[in-house]
Parts: sequence; C-alpha cells; structure tokens
Amino acid sequence: MFEIFNQHRSIRKYSGKAIDSDLLNQLLETACRASNTGNMQTYSIVLTTEDDLKKQLAPAHFNQAMVVNAPVVLTFCADFNRFTKWCEMRQAQPGYANFQSFMAAAIDAVILAQQFCVAAESKGLGICYLGTTTYNAGEIIEALNLPELVVPITTITVGYPAEDPLLTDRLPLKAIVHRETYQHFSDAEIDSFYAEKESDPLNRQFIIENQKSTLAQVFTDIRYTKANNEFFSEKFLQVLRMQGFID
Amino acid sequence: MFEIFNQHRSIRKYSGKAIDSDLLNQLLETACRASNTGNMQTYSIVLTTEDDLKKQLAPAHFNQAMVVNAPVVLTFCADFNRFTKWCEMRQAQPGYANFQSFMAAAIDAVILAQQFCVAAESKGLGICYLGTTTYNAGEIIEALNLPELVVPITTITVGYPAEDPLLTDRLPLKAIVHRETYQHFSDAEIDSFYAEKESDPLNRQFIIENQKSTLAQVFTDIRYTKANNEFFSEKFLQVLRMQGFID
Repeated sequence: MFEIFNQHRSIRKYSGKAIDSDLLNQLLETACRASNTGNMQTYSIVLTTEDDLKKQLAPAHFNQAMVVNAPVVLTFCADFNRFTKWCEMRQAQPGYANFQSFMAAAIDAVILAQQFCVAAESKGLGICYLGTTTYNAGEIIEALNLPELVVPITTITVGYPAEDPLLTDRLPLKAIVHRETYQHFSDAEIDSFYAEKESDPLNRQFIIENQKSTLAQVFTDIRYTKANNEFFSEKFLQVLRMQGFID
Repeated sequence: MFEIFNQHRSIRKYSGKAIDSDLLNQLLETACRASNTGNMQTYSIVLTTEDDLKKQLAPAHFNQAMVVNAPVVLTFCADFNRFTKWCEMRQAQPGYANFQSFMAAAIDAVILAQQFCVAAESKGLGICYLGTTTYNAGEIIEALNLPELVVPITTITVGYPAEDPLLTDRLPLKAIVHRETYQHFSDAEIDSFYAEKESDPLNRQFIIENQKSTLAQVFTDIRYTKANNEFFSEKFLQVLRMQGFID
C-alpha cells in the first residue's frame, strides 16, 4: 500500500490511451469520500477533455504542454455558489461571501484533489499539479465560465504515463516535523537540511546554466521571483474580490 | 485499494493504543512524498503528543475532546520561514512575504495532510480534520511558538479508532463535477441534489431540535453563521498580516 504513496512522481507526458469513463467516475466518487467541512461539499471539479477548451485553458497555465496533451484536465474549485443557491431556495440567509469561507472551501478542494490523485495513481494513472491555477485564476474563470463564489484553486492533468521520471529529493524529516512545538533552526541545521539538494549534479548544472552562484538564487531570481509573486498576489486578490469572497 | 479511500469516516474517539513511533515516522515520510510546488516543501508539521501542550491547543479548537484524547495532534502549516532563512544564508533575495506565496504553501500543506491521512487510514488509524485551525490560528501560533511566515492551515487528530461511525451522505456526482465548463443549475436540479440529505431522519431531527424550518437554516443560523464567518475572516486576515504574508 505504502509503495503507491511513496512512488509518486509528477507525470507530464501521457500515452494515447484514453481513461475509461467508468474508472474516471469511480475516481471522482472516491475523491468525494474525503473529509470536508461540515459535509457541505463546497467545492466543484470542472472536467475538461475537449481539445478546444484545453487550448483555451493552456495560456492560463503558461502553455505547459500537458494541458493540451493530457486526456483529462481537472480544475478543482472552491465553490460556495451551489450551497448559497440552496440556502436561498430554503429561506436561509447565506453568509459565505467572506475570506474564512473561501479558506474552508479552498482547503476542502485540495483535500478532494489529493484524494483523487492517490486513487488515480493506485490505478496506474499519472498526474501533475499545476500551481499556475492561482496565478491566472481570472483567465481560468473566463475559460470555464465560473460564476460568483467559485474560484479555481488547483488543476491536475491526468493520463496514462508515457515517461518514468526518477523520484525527486526531499528534505530530511527533521526539517519538516517539529516535535511538540516549533523548533528554530541554527545555520548549521539549515546547511545540513539543504546539503543533499545543493550537491545534486542536476541542481549544480541549473546554477551554472542560469549564471547564478547558489541554488537558492535559481529560486529567488528565476523560478519564484519577488516581482512575480507580488504581481500574482495582487491578481489573485483581485479575483477573490471579483468572485465575492473579499471586499 | 479503493475500499480504504471509500471507507473514510472522521474518527473522534480513540482507543488507548499508542502509535508506534516507527510507523508514525514512516507515515510522515510518506506524506512528504506528495506533490509540492517547485519541490520547495514550504510547509511544516508540528507533532504534539504531550498532555500539557494538547491542553494548551484545545481552546483554539473550541475544546473538542479529541484534541486532548488523541495520542497525536498534527498541525499542518504553510511555512516560508525555513526556505527564506536558506535564501538569506545563500546570498539570495527571498520574495515570499506575500499572498501568492501563502496560497502556494497553504495548498501544499493540505496536499501533505491528505496524503498523511490516506496513508494512516491504510494502516488502520483513524483521523479527524479540525477546521477550527483557521478560526483561531493566532492562538495556535502562540501555543506552538510559530515564527513569521508560518501559519497553521489545518490540524488532524490521529489514533486507533474506538468508534465505528456510519459513512456520511454525499451529494450526487453531477452536483460536483461539471463537464467541460461550469454548468449553472436550475432550481429543480438543486432540489434533487439535496433531496437525500433533506430526507435523512437525523437531519430532520436537527431541524426540529434547533427549532428551524429547513436544514439549510441549521447551517446558516447555527453551524456556519454569517456573523461568525465574518468575525473569523477578520481574525485570520489579521494573522496573515502578523505572520508577514499580507500588508
């Protein structure tokens, strides 16, 4: 059982094999069995398979090839629209146009997504998460016609693997798990946590290719820059306003 | 395999049986194998087992009994503190004190949590998510000594089950899954989606006990009220400011 969980690699290349629709429905049903807040199920999944729609979604994901090439693209959304509509139809005053409700729905959408992923992987499928979803949520809202109180949180592409990438490194557990309360790390501890990552030949090559002097600079100057993070922060906050979750 | 995923029930009562520390470490390692943004692992888990600390955490979770009674309480946090410290030690200018970075780290913390949960359940353990984490994040930060750029996102209690609750209902899949693009539901569709939930004898009893006329009113007037949601929204935004993720 553990093997499946421990063997996760992001799969970005898919074979032409279609996903059986019964299997897909089973996986979606299984995903919905995961925990959720108050059993309100304030989430939605938009299942996109049509080429035209995948092409419309692709720019929002910076045209990463798997969006068009995967047989199935799933956009997981925080969704208080359905629940609010139900409340209004039942003489109940909904109060979900706020940040706390957004957070609860977003957390539940991610629990749903990850339950889908492990179930899919247990059936031989490969998945890849697209973090671009919160960068360009507005463009996704437009492409998928999402109404108020619905915000895309994460996207996964799904299909049968046509690649077999290596497992990626992980920090030692003591860097992640704090016993009883949070432990503040010394410089020597930080050095030791990142030693494996920094000595990895591929990572050393990234440093050279990008003309940087440290691996951390590859992250701060190229991959996840302050300017981009600040730009996309404003953009996402604007989406939360547009969809009615914050003022 | 599917059976485990499909049999999830929140377990709130635990037997006295301790969780073997090797098993717990294995589960934590397995959780860290899940997907994360750019392999930055910008999350932490605070593992609390001491009675005194569990008692300190309990009020933040509205004194739900399982916080004190579970052998293990895991607080999953968005954490850009460690990564930022590494950047600063490597002549790299970190740019993660913003909302987009918070969202990425929060999403990854939840993926981590859910991977832990399914792995734990596959070994016969029971878990329960505590949505109170984002209500009283400030109190949790104080109890667990969380530094800047660390925010608790969700908490789970873990232990061997001492109860065997029934599966809870779920909305029909067509209420959750939208084919190709978002489908706007008619009143008749909303009626049909909620029919099972509304006819459930236990839910009908809740309506009577709470002197309400519809099940939706139990949610809006008692369980998840507008006033509470707005109060806890402000509180959580204040925590994001305090921890440095928003201005």
